[in-house]
Amino acid sequence: MQATEMSETEEPYSILNAAQAILDGQLTARALTDACLNAVESHEPKIRAWQYLDPAAARSQADDRDGAVATAPLHGIPIGIKDIIDTADMPTECGSPIHEGRRPVTDATSVARLRDAGATILGKTVTTEFAAFKPPVTRNPYDPTRTPGGSSSGSAAAVSSGMVPAAIGSQTAGSVIRPAAFCGVVGFKPSYGSIDIQGVKPFARALDTLGVFARTVEDAALVARVIGDTFGPLGQADVGHPSPPRIGLCRPREWAQTDDATKETFIATSQHLRNAGATVDPFDMPEAFVELFDLQQTIQVGQVSDSLAWEYQNHAELLSDVLRAALDESVAFAPGRLDAALEQAARRRERADELFGDYDFLLTPSAAGEAPTPETTGDPMFNRIWTVLHGPCITLPAATGPNGLPIGVQLVGRLNDDARLIAWARWTEAALRS
Amino acid sequence: MQATEMSETEEPYSILNAAQAILDGQLTARALTDACLNAVESHEPKIRAWQYLDPAAARSQADDRDGAVATAPLHGIPIGIKDIIDTADMPTECGSPIHEGRRPVTDATSVARLRDAGATILGKTVTTEFAAFKPPVTRNPYDPTRTPGGSSSGSAAAVSSGMVPAAIGSQTAGSVIRPAAFCGVVGFKPSYGSIDIQGVKPFARALDTLGVFARTVEDAALVARVIGDTFGPLGQADVGHPSPPRIGLCRPREWAQTDDATKETFIATSQHLRNAGATVDPFDMPEAFVELFDLQQTIQVGQVSDSLAWEYQNHAELLSDVLRAALDESVAFAPGRLDAALEQAARRRERADELFGDYDFLLTPSAAGEAPTPETTGDPMFNRIWTVLHGPCITLPAATGPNGLPIGVQLVGRLNDDARLIAWARWTEAALRS
Repeated sequence: MQATEMSETEEPYSILNAAQAILDGQLTARALTDACLNAVESHEPKIRAWQYLDPAAARSQADDRDGAVATAPLHGIPIGIKDIIDTADMPTECGSPIHEGRRPVTDATSVARLRDAGATILGKTVTTEFAAFKPPVTRNPYDPTRTPGGSSSGSAAAVSSGMVPAAIGSQTAGSVIRPAAFCGVVGFKPSYGSIDIQGVKPFARALDTLGVFARTVEDAALVARVIGDTFGPLGQADVGHPSPPRIGLCRPREWAQTDDATKETFIATSQHLRNAGATVDPFDMPEAFVELFDLQQTIQVGQVSDSLAWEYQNHAELLSDVLRAALDESVAFAPGRLDAALEQAARRRERADELFGDYDFLLTPSAAGEAPTPETTGDPMFNRIWTVLHGPCITLPAATGPNGLPIGVQLVGRLNDDARLIAWARWTEAALRS
Repeated sequence: MQATEMSETEEPYSILNAAQAILDGQLTARALTDACLNAVESHEPKIRAWQYLDPAAARSQADDRDGAVATAPLHGIPIGIKDIIDTADMPTECGSPIHEGRRPVTDATSVARLRDAGATILGKTVTTEFAAFKPPVTRNPYDPTRTPGGSSSGSAAAVSSGMVPAAIGSQTAGSVIRPAAFCGVVGFKPSYGSIDIQGVKPFARALDTLGVFARTVEDAALVARVIGDTFGPLGQADVGHPSPPRIGLCRPREWAQTDDATKETFIATSQHLRNAGATVDPFDMPEAFVELFDLQQTIQVGQVSDSLAWEYQNHAELLSDVLRAALDESVAFAPGRLDAALEQAARRRERADELFGDYDFLLTPSAAGEAPTPETTGDPMFNRIWTVLHGPCITLPAATGPNGLPIGVQLVGRLNDDARLIAWARWTEAALRS
């Protein structure tokens, strides 16, 4: 289980430890911000994770925190924000020339809540164009000839390279779990609807979910709790587990497309968790749930014409070919096709108990293999079903592939059962490290 | 059944007729816009329905429409937009000095869809502060010493006084149905989630729903179909009804608070519909659904701290006392209280069939009486339960009260059964006119 050496040397604190050190007066927000900015200086020219970062403004935020009494859980902790999420003090350009220089009047609710919890906003991280398909400039910190994944490309790469201890992203198909896996960090996509999305540019509103990138499950959960509503009070993930979990090993239809290293990681991880005491049973996904794969695609394409209605009407020529083609398809949807897909997805969600059975969580690949070369952001094939099911997903770094790039495993939980999935992810993280 | 004489003389066209006349070359968008602007000139000094209206810009939009081929369903039709809904070519101030002069870069999806359907945006209508409680400057066209209701105060008053044939508003408790009833127009609150809310300032996101004010059910439905997704293709409301409806007469707990005129209207309307062939059975609301009243209030207050997180953090001194008090309460909510209310509301929604039984729709008061004096916007007591149930509601003008102000009746349908409720509302409208 390889750790990110780079990160550990340059930014040794977990968020929890850093926040505690700041509370105790053993660390200043300024020193922590400076450490982040040093990492930015070292890595950004190659990685290009940031769409907007003003070092002087970041230091000034940190100094303000140092001048105030530390009481909030993220006091002085720098956070990166995906550039589809509004910030009142920085531009928010959504990865598109159409929004170039746009400066929102207000913060998104998630950003306001982060600030309220004492965080400093280090900068805006690169997103693909409107969180869609077009590959961005960002590169994978493990290998600059590879993609970091997308669409939350900058958030994943910035956390992976130690430039910031946590960052916010969003997932409509696989835009949190996939880049987190490709970049060797923890990615947490909470239950749909648990985090307010005011001020977030939508892609497909029946799917869009904010998520968190961090270097440990505990850190990701801490940040998610600050911006979200359904994870219970802080510390709840610390519930003890008297007995190890029952895990369903889920190899969906797309399993055939995983590379050998991913198959080996999956099998090795199962064995590791069995050795740690877990019951791990293979199971095949019921046919009714296999269909969610196509339903997710239909909903995503069907709703994008609403999400980008103004842009398509007024600036179609500034959209990429691939996104404009998706919009052309979306506006030409047959009447009732989107509604039918939404209805069918809702019916599957009501039957999710059939899927989870007695399992505490499902274990499934995060992606088909290591990060590919940057002509694409990789394929969200292992994420679509879970995103449209609306439940929580967490990816953990589990191995290193033949090309030296990280491979993740994904834990999937029941809708609104996020606190328990976080607890099991901490158990799994500890088991993988042992 | 009193019609709005003022409207009929100054702006004689229904939207459907006007759009047809424009298509046929018998009416220009410019002439229709000029008629609206003439009504504005006559009534606006007393009514104050508009937060922003630039006559020259409105005429220029109309001229552009006249210069293009009319193909879309609202070609050249002027629409008013509640000022919590983003417009790229006009300020969007949300009824608050905090957003003074704010000019969004993009249109809200609903506005973009209106423009795509050929509508011209006449201007922005007055909203209460952030669509909440503080009474606005707008007055009731039937009596300037009375409130038009709220929070969609300007949208209701503008349509009522013939200044625009339709306007968009929003409802979180009773902000469409109540002002429509007070101002003697049709108000339609579709099913929750059926209209995209990108670019709409949220109040409580589990409740916020866009709605339409118009002078006929057909007009309201036409506009709702253009901006919404779940009403089926245009014309679907024209389905014939071989047999008259079964109507449940719903007198909820708040019935005791209605005034005599409202009780009489309710009883007279029932009799009228019976005479037209309907089966009308009184029924009492099951206890489990009575609780939705309190759940709505809990959810509304519980979510406002997310909706106004940035404003509360940065400009609390510019909030009204009443809204700041709600925010103080919201941030102090006990952990889990909001989640519990959301969960309980969801469980009631799953059992809505118990409520609707064999009825085609429920008939219930729209408000407790005529519009009160403008120290308040009236009480949404007859709207809270239906808003949190998420189904469609339509209010129709049904009578004139002792003070010469309109009294409405409300039709309530099943979730996502909007097309059918519209059809029954047209049946009811015709029956009330006969």
